[in-house]
Amino acid sequence: MSGITAHYQLYGKSGSFEKKADDIALGLTIGSWTNLAFLEQEQLKKHKGTVRSVTEFENILHPIHPERIKGEIKVFYPAANFSADIPAILTTVFGKLSLDGEVKLLDLEFDTNILSHFPGPRFGIQGIRERLGVYERPLIMSIFKGVIGRDIEYLAQQLRQQALGGVDLVKDDEILFDNPLTSFETRITTGREVLRQVYEETGHRTLYAVNLSGRTFKLKDKAKKARELGADALLFNVHAYGLDVLQELAEDEEIQLPLMAHPAYSGAFTSSGFYGVSTALVLGKLTRYAGADFSLFPSPYGSVALEKSVALSLGKELTKPSEVKQSFPVPSAGIHPGLVPLLMNDYGIDSIINAGGGVHGHPAGATGGGLAFRQAVSAVLEGIPLEEAAKTQSELNTALELWR
Amino acid sequence: MSGITAHYQLYGKSGSFEKKADDIALGLTIGSWTNLAFLEQEQLKKHKGTVRSVTEFENILHPIHPERIKGEIKVFYPAANFSADIPAILTTVFGKLSLDGEVKLLDLEFDTNILSHFPGPRFGIQGIRERLGVYERPLIMSIFKGVIGRDIEYLAQQLRQQALGGVDLVKDDEILFDNPLTSFETRITTGREVLRQVYEETGHRTLYAVNLSGRTFKLKDKAKKARELGADALLFNVHAYGLDVLQELAEDEEIQLPLMAHPAYSGAFTSSGFYGVSTALVLGKLTRYAGADFSLFPSPYGSVALEKSVALSLGKELTKPSEVKQSFPVPSAGIHPGLVPLLMNDYGIDSIINAGGGVHGHPAGATGGGLAFRQAVSAVLEGIPLEEAAKTQSELNTALELWR
Ligand SMILES: [Mg+2]
Ligand SMILES: [Mg+2]
Repeated sequence: MSGITAHYQLYGKSGSFEKKADDIALGLTIGSWTNLAFLEQEQLKKHKGTVRSVTEFENILHPIHPERIKGEIKVFYPAANFSADIPAILTTVFGKLSLDGEVKLLDLEFDTNILSHFPGPRFGIQGIRERLGVYERPLIMSIFKGVIGRDIEYLAQQLRQQALGGVDLVKDDEILFDNPLTSFETRITTGREVLRQVYEETGHRTLYAVNLSGRTFKLKDKAKKARELGADALLFNVHAYGLDVLQELAEDEEIQLPLMAHPAYSGAFTSSGFYGVSTALVLGKLTRYAGADFSLFPSPYGSVALEKSVALSLGKELTKPSEVKQSFPVPSAGIHPGLVPLLMNDYGIDSIINAGGGVHGHPAGATGGGLAFRQAVSAVLEGIPLEEAAKTQSELNTALELWR
Repeated sequence: MSGITAHYQLYGKSGSFEKKADDIALGLTIGSWTNLAFLEQEQLKKHKGTVRSVTEFENILHPIHPERIKGEIKVFYPAANFSADIPAILTTVFGKLSLDGEVKLLDLEFDTNILSHFPGPRFGIQGIRERLGVYERPLIMSIFKGVIGRDIEYLAQQLRQQALGGVDLVKDDEILFDNPLTSFETRITTGREVLRQVYEETGHRTLYAVNLSGRTFKLKDKAKKARELGADALLFNVHAYGLDVLQELAEDEEIQLPLMAHPAYSGAFTSSGFYGVSTALVLGKLTRYAGADFSLFPSPYGSVALEKSVALSLGKELTKPSEVKQSFPVPSAGIHPGLVPLLMNDYGIDSIINAGGGVHGHPAGATGGGLAFRQAVSAVLEGIPLEEAAKTQSELNTALELWR
């Protein structure tokens, strides 16, 4: 019998978790069992939830209610109970339960024939590398900054400066929506032309991820339009829409563009230690299963930061062996060249180093910022300490002095 | 200049909130201000966020970090910065910010010309009452129970029993998805026939809300099919999809069916006192603006319960004067006839009394359960104490004895 096993964290009285787990397994499936007649039990047993494990942590007390301890339980839900889509799965395993006190959804194990309904990334890490022709190093990404209220010339200049610094990807600011000054279509066509010019001048290829925004049922047509206009990739604020919308975009054969999942709004349901859903599940596993080629998340190092263990487990979810392709981990926020050795140590070469202020704030401009990142990456790959490399690489040197 | 004003709760050091508010107002709009040239300031000022108020609560200490106090800030975001859709608004006001420490989004004030982009309920309280011909009392709703793995005969019987008890609405279990035994289409056509028979026999009209589920981009066609087949209303697990999907369904002229928003999964982002979004905003204001005719939520009285002040403010958001129609508040979970006076005191007659176990668990079956609720409502409307009414109303008497 195939299905999904949900892992939950709860707080409660010592000795109470076994019953709670039983209540969940029955209450979220067939409702009752012991009072059913034998024939009914025969009919319903393939729909019955099952407790897979119950663990009580006697030494982990609730910080405010020390009479409660932490527990973890695992409950199996048969595939017969839900359609193989994320809304049905989330409603089954964490619908009513999300409202039922201090319970956090930590993980979901998908059996293979359920996972077969999920596309995963269309391109994945390997496919993106092939588009760029870059295989042996982490990619570098930078972000448009301060572009609200600016015109297309301003954006074009900013894009050119970033590309000239050698970044592999540039993404829209996630808070730049359709607007009269820099419409979706204009950003795509202008961006394409700017990047074509840089490529002709330098031989360096940069991809631009444009922010796909607006009403849900217009997204597919907009994405197809983007493809027609020659867009490289789509940035998408998936958590303000829903993971199933991402999956719809990933599966559409007429879109076929790399999808970059932004974590905007996800903190609303991942940040609490007691409620909601784990970061590794939402920004990691489910974002990958739904088809994002890139998943952005706060690195452990910036001002907006994830706990290091969380940020690492998230990266693992995006890249560990699976039936679906790998998504690029994109640790973000407050990244400067001095952090490159840490990030490469954490995420390896199959990751993206993403910076906003760390590129634009460079004294030599965005171009100098991009160069400094490329120099930092090269130094780490060659096993040279950054301070050593900075002696001959002026952009890196400037960056290290600024952000020490 | 029109826009949206967001209210946030934060925790931080006394005296630190003014700067935090400034950082948010700039950081989530144009990025910087003081270092801009005068001409740039002229160009960007209509995009600049503005701090509207900062309040520090010196006496409300963080329960774990007492060096932090509670604060509330209000920030205005100009409409020029975002398209008038919920994903863009949530990304603007709580995108990156949701990941930035202990901050909770409490409320959003929509200026009128932004609100004009939101349909609100198509029917609203008045429209639903007209469909039922019931004006002077709260409506009664009951819920299918234990229907996973059951066949259509079982559901038909359960529906008939519920309708015979005089309930106004019956809703699907939100965890019943498309399945071979009781498909969406079969539930609609069978339900329609069962309710037609009950109407012929008794003259009482009951509406059935069928669970609209499955992949996002198939929902509209499924909803249109439902309408063709004569469905009365659609239940929708909006928070497992996204509020904009609800709005798309509400706006579609070819659907035009009452929409019942289920709170499944919403606890993931409403339950924490420190993170996420307030219940009144998500299940109240935004659910109404997006077009739900009904919003279900945990009452203050059951096993799965909201804090009373929260449950009341939620009800107010659904019904207070506004440019859009009213949504029915549907306090739910653990409701039995003895709670009817409390619920009517809390929510008035323009609300729905919704019960699962409180209908099905009645010793005289779902029919007796429904009757007991109708008797309780009549007693309250007539100003008769339930115990008094129970002397002549046997179903109510039985209910009060069982659930005292
Ligand atoms: Mg940004
Ligand atoms: Mg239910």
